[in-house]
Amino acid sequence: MNEIFYRPIGLVHSPFKEPKGTPIQASGAKGIQGKIEVFPEFVSGLKDLEGFSHMILIYHLHLIKETKLEVKPFLDNQTHGIFATRAPGRPNPIGISVVRLVDIDQNILTVKDLDIIDGTPLLDIKPYISEFDYRNVTKNGWYKENVHNLSESKDDGRFI
Amino acid sequence: MNEIFYRPIGLVHSPFKEPKGTPIQASGAKGIQGKIEVFPEFVSGLKDLEGFSHMILIYHLHLIKETKLEVKPFLDNQTHGIFATRAPGRPNPIGISVVRLVDIDQNILTVKDLDIIDGTPLLDIKPYISEFDYRNVTKNGWYKENVHNLSESKDDGRFI
Repeated sequence: MNEIFYRPIGLVHSPFKEPKGTPIQASGAKGIQGKIEVFPEFVSGLKDLEGFSHMILIYHLHLIKETKLEVKPFLDNQTHGIFATRAPGRPNPIGISVVRLVDIDQNILTVKDLDIIDGTPLLDIKPYISEFDYRNVTKNGWYKENVHNLSESKDDGRFI
Repeated sequence: MNEIFYRPIGLVHSPFKEPKGTPIQASGAKGIQGKIEVFPEFVSGLKDLEGFSHMILIYHLHLIKETKLEVKPFLDNQTHGIFATRAPGRPNPIGISVVRLVDIDQNILTVKDLDIIDGTPLLDIKPYISEFDYRNVTKNGWYKENVHNLSESKDDGRFI
């Protein structure tokens, strides 16, 4: 299998209009509100989603033009392999964010803790489920020393 | 943007050769060991990944042939919207699993808690980071009443 083909199921509407200044993780975007527009043909797929407090958004990082296998991520001044970072400039530029679900009105989801750039194409929505998604982590790698900078750190546009 | 193309960065090698009998979540596959083959051209992207105890695998559910917007998932006999489930038959069949990283030898990762079918094309690897990926969930939707069945529940092939 050489090529995999997806189609957006919706669009992200967010206060962040460009990479520069965008929070670098949903956990660094506390309270930031936005809307997820699910295209009308997919609306029946949202049935019962309102029962969940959090959901995983999977999206295409559409502004990424090139990728490097070793990068200097936002939270460090050392170089790491792209798969040991959450940086956006990935071989397949797929982003994931866990956001809070506030409201569903037809095909429009209101969410909080949004760290995604306006106009980003949405690929999938999955419910976040404690028993599936929580892990008792023993090693947080190079992030361990740097993650305390998360709330002050923003995208600076280095990956576009 | 109408079409998004990705290319596999590797392949999953797993004891599960078909959907039937495969665990339905990584948290229902405790101790199951397998290998992730990262194609050699991406190996420098793995630098420093060994510092993390867990990683998020993002992959293409390549056996899915059709999708429905309302499905009966493995853990319930009621129908739910596909985006309110983790069922594989999704409009964009993208899977995510959080697995334990045991060892890295060149381009081969040994992992545990593997719930992925042998031969699945890998799209991305991200480090799992407590501060990014843990949420204090208040509502687990319809899963709440059903998730205790996880360890006994297996894929029965209904989505291929």
